[in-house]
Amino acid sequence: MHELQFIQDLAVVLLVAGCTTVLFQRLRQPVVLGYILAGVLIGPHTPPFKLIQDEQTIRTLSELGVILLLFSLGLEFSLKKLRQVGGKALVVVCVEVLLLPWLGFEIGRLFGWRTMDAVFLGAMITISSTTIIMKALDELGLKQERFAQQMFGLLIMEDIVAVVMMALLTGIASTGGVAAGDAAAIIGRLALFMAVALVAGLLLIPRLLDYVAHFGRHDVLLVTVLGVCFGFCLLVAGMGYSVALGAFMIGAIVAEARCAGRIEQLVEPVRDMFSAIFFVAIGLMIDPQVLVQYALPILAVTLAVLLGKVVACGFGAFVAGNDGRTALRIGMGMAQIGEFSFVIATLGLGLGVISRFLYPVAVAVSVLTTFLTPYLIRASAPAADVLARAMPAGARGMFAAYTAWLDSLRLNEEGAAVAKMIRRLLWHVAINAMLVVAVFIAVAFLYRRGYLHLDALDARAGLQRALAWSLAALLALPMIVAAYRKADALGLLLAELGIRERFAGARTYPLRRALAKLIPLATLLALALLVGVLGSAILPPRQVLLALLLVFAVATWFLWRGLVAVHARLQAAIKETLETPRSEEF
Amino acid sequence: MHELQFIQDLAVVLLVAGCTTVLFQRLRQPVVLGYILAGVLIGPHTPPFKLIQDEQTIRTLSELGVILLLFSLGLEFSLKKLRQVGGKALVVVCVEVLLLPWLGFEIGRLFGWRTMDAVFLGAMITISSTTIIMKALDELGLKQERFAQQMFGLLIMEDIVAVVMMALLTGIASTGGVAAGDAAAIIGRLALFMAVALVAGLLLIPRLLDYVAHFGRHDVLLVTVLGVCFGFCLLVAGMGYSVALGAFMIGAIVAEARCAGRIEQLVEPVRDMFSAIFFVAIGLMIDPQVLVQYALPILAVTLAVLLGKVVACGFGAFVAGNDGRTALRIGMGMAQIGEFSFVIATLGLGLGVISRFLYPVAVAVSVLTTFLTPYLIRASAPAADVLARAMPAGARGMFAAYTAWLDSLRLNEEGAAVAKMIRRLLWHVAINAMLVVAVFIAVAFLYRRGYLHLDALDARAGLQRALAWSLAALLALPMIVAAYRKADALGLLLAELGIRERFAGARTYPLRRALAKLIPLATLLALALLVGVLGSAILPPRQVLLALLLVFAVATWFLWRGLVAVHARLQAAIKETLETPRSEEF
Repeated sequence: MHELQFIQDLAVVLLVAGCTTVLFQRLRQPVVLGYILAGVLIGPHTPPFKLIQDEQTIRTLSELGVILLLFSLGLEFSLKKLRQVGGKALVVVCVEVLLLPWLGFEIGRLFGWRTMDAVFLGAMITISSTTIIMKALDELGLKQERFAQQMFGLLIMEDIVAVVMMALLTGIASTGGVAAGDAAAIIGRLALFMAVALVAGLLLIPRLLDYVAHFGRHDVLLVTVLGVCFGFCLLVAGMGYSVALGAFMIGAIVAEARCAGRIEQLVEPVRDMFSAIFFVAIGLMIDPQVLVQYALPILAVTLAVLLGKVVACGFGAFVAGNDGRTALRIGMGMAQIGEFSFVIATLGLGLGVISRFLYPVAVAVSVLTTFLTPYLIRASAPAADVLARAMPAGARGMFAAYTAWLDSLRLNEEGAAVAKMIRRLLWHVAINAMLVVAVFIAVAFLYRRGYLHLDALDARAGLQRALAWSLAALLALPMIVAAYRKADALGLLLAELGIRERFAGARTYPLRRALAKLIPLATLLALALLVGVLGSAILPPRQVLLALLLVFAVATWFLWRGLVAVHARLQAAIKETLETPRSEEF
Repeated sequence: MHELQFIQDLAVVLLVAGCTTVLFQRLRQPVVLGYILAGVLIGPHTPPFKLIQDEQTIRTLSELGVILLLFSLGLEFSLKKLRQVGGKALVVVCVEVLLLPWLGFEIGRLFGWRTMDAVFLGAMITISSTTIIMKALDELGLKQERFAQQMFGLLIMEDIVAVVMMALLTGIASTGGVAAGDAAAIIGRLALFMAVALVAGLLLIPRLLDYVAHFGRHDVLLVTVLGVCFGFCLLVAGMGYSVALGAFMIGAIVAEARCAGRIEQLVEPVRDMFSAIFFVAIGLMIDPQVLVQYALPILAVTLAVLLGKVVACGFGAFVAGNDGRTALRIGMGMAQIGEFSFVIATLGLGLGVISRFLYPVAVAVSVLTTFLTPYLIRASAPAADVLARAMPAGARGMFAAYTAWLDSLRLNEEGAAVAKMIRRLLWHVAINAMLVVAVFIAVAFLYRRGYLHLDALDARAGLQRALAWSLAALLALPMIVAAYRKADALGLLLAELGIRERFAGARTYPLRRALAKLIPLATLLALALLVGVLGSAILPPRQVLLALLLVFAVATWFLWRGLVAVHARLQAAIKETLETPRSEEF
């Protein structure tokens, strides 16, 4: 009767969770804490007895909870929103990433924990909880305030940082440590992978889902979405990243489908069920005795989160150009940790590199800081007033001067337009270069694994490599051409801006022409070097390579317009996907 | 990496199911068939290879699918609707239950199958598929027609028959066969259990859920509902019935909550996900070779379903008072089997009493008949015309005379009101009697298990039994009083109706008074006998019993008004639950 046992476990988990969450609702406390308490009550560490037969199954289901939780966060995330709030949030997140992981690491060392525990502690206290903040702002009726809007941008940025951090932590865990170069390599590989997956995903997935949605059957759409989500997570896990990263990315991709609103509504109950199980499973791992034993570290970490977050976010928000009052409110609102800390702890446990006590510590800190969040947000306005009054006049003047100076730095309208154009061209060059590199890496991978079956054509390795290389070059050609064209445009623009007639005089035009050509050629050269290094497995012998390059150069000359057209079609498809608004009908 | 493997299995199931269902949508075939095909493709019997690592987990999840499927059916079921359509549908279902199980059994015997296989085959072909019929009528735009309305009533009635049949089959499977007396005992026990569970459930569950719902958090409501659902299923499974029965009953109970509409919307996606897994799991069990091997039985059973259903439902509908045309349309619409057949087959496999080949046979028959359903419904109107024209005038006249005779039987208005009153009083007496019996059985059960801890009070068995019996009597007292009062009212009514003044003359009043007292006394006596037999474990020694009876009689005399009030409160609570309409806001 394995089935009955499974249903019994599920019934116990859900019934107890129902009771505790209703209780927490009555006490006006976050529901998440209710779920965790349910887990503690059910768990093996608390009397009267063990209520769950098969913890492993609950934990397996809780993995679905993580995936669906991050998938939902991805669905709410939007590339467009990111672009709007990006600048200021980036500054704050940089300050956070400098301060909080270091703080956590030092606390871990202070208590004599293992290095890896300290590293993970640092990561765990870096990311605030979107759910808790949203809930608190909603209940206090502050969602429309300016500081709240800034916080949303910050939370989106933090999501990305969390995802990058998880990739880094996975790398650190597998190598035991990380050098600066390794970290750069990990981030580079991650950026490459994310860019390729996003471009390919945006081309395919929203179209596919909109096609499925047009039949109007909810169950078929839901089943397809979940299949795509889990499938993508597996793919990402196969590349050595966490399933959580995959879930977040596929969520962000699915968010660009026209039927994303309907998908959100369909996925919500399924997510609610499994994320409840996830939070209960967290509670299952908590032994109250461990909490007593680690009371001191818990207190220290809680203080670190409160002070560190207020200082880092507050200071960061001020540096980014907010007035002191708004900055303080942002800082006090962000002072807690939540679901991402659990996901990171789960990652560490799954990789087998952190000690078991870290989980209860993280949960306890989250419980304490979550509990304080509404009070902190409510206290932030009076606190700002008190602080402003208590501040010496000199300091106040200095702060005001800084804000004024920042405002003076702002570009005039024409300058802003030009800066935007340059940024766009740089993005296009970068993304196309990444796609080219990805094509060569992918073909080299397939060649090494023997999936191309080139040995059936000819036994000579040199010829095989030449064929594989040609295939990659052919596939990459539209992107190479696009990168060249955008770099060309960038060169023209920069030459125009950089070499003013009044300084260069008669030599203006030759100089401009030289600079304008230098940039696309340098881009091509850099691309060739990258491809040569990263695709070295399929690099043909030198003479063959030269001959091939010549052939491709001539072919490009003749096919120029066709290649441009192919690239334009792909680009238009992505642009359309990103710009089509969600349909509202359900 | 057990988690990853699990996610991989899930991804495969959902992705393949997504593809096949989209294909079936394009071909305008039922989605359910797409799910089953996905299972066949993934399954171990078809090339290229086994795509699922761990069939057991998928099967465990598919059990959740059964539960949620039947829970949804229960949610759509309503006691009110049943009362409206009850009469005619009951006649049709009786004809079906006489014909189809016998037909299935004979076919099984014809092919030399084991007795239990033949019995289960009979059960499997008895119940039509609600899902398929709803879908077909919806697509043909016939939902508002008179014959469609009749079919809905019939389908509700069939759901109940299926539930009873499953309880019977469980009984048959555990004893190896069933005598008429045993069957009556099984049905009696089932009726008792259902009545008690419904009354207790209606008193508690809707109130509880409305309380949880008023917090306005979807996730808490969903978690609570699922917990209650799974918990109730376990309870029912603990009593020896199937979880499917439990799921249907708790669905019907939850349906009476004011927030039932919201619950329906929340549960729908979860149900869709797991029922997709359920249907895929059905496909997993199908070996195409078995289908070839059993082609002949499959054809025979398909014919039996088509002919048997058309004849049984058509004839039944005609006997129940429909005109010939409507009757034929009802018969042709009901001619298929679906989800309940799979649930019954799952039950048989779970009990280990049927052969493995029965599953693919049932699925194949369901696929064939499902495929034909829309064509049969469309063809039913022309078929009725053809039949009417081809029929000899004499037969036609006979049919018309029957319908006219039925109409003449209808009671006049006053008669109908009296009949309704009698029916209501009978129901009240029966339900209160069942509750009394249930209280005694429950107390006897607790006493035998030692949960009452009466041995702590006194070691003498006689005294312990007297105490337990008193407890049961005390709890049952409001219901005993109610049963007596309703029986009394029934006696007065029947006496008034049965003994007319013009026949009995002067003796009318004494006779009436005698009859009026006879009925409540007989009821009490019958109740006492039932309680004595079924609660024999706590029957005290005779002298003690007589003393107790005297005490209780005196107490009842003094407490009469209080007891009536307690019962009235309980009755009013249930009535309110049943009559409060669902709130529409989400």
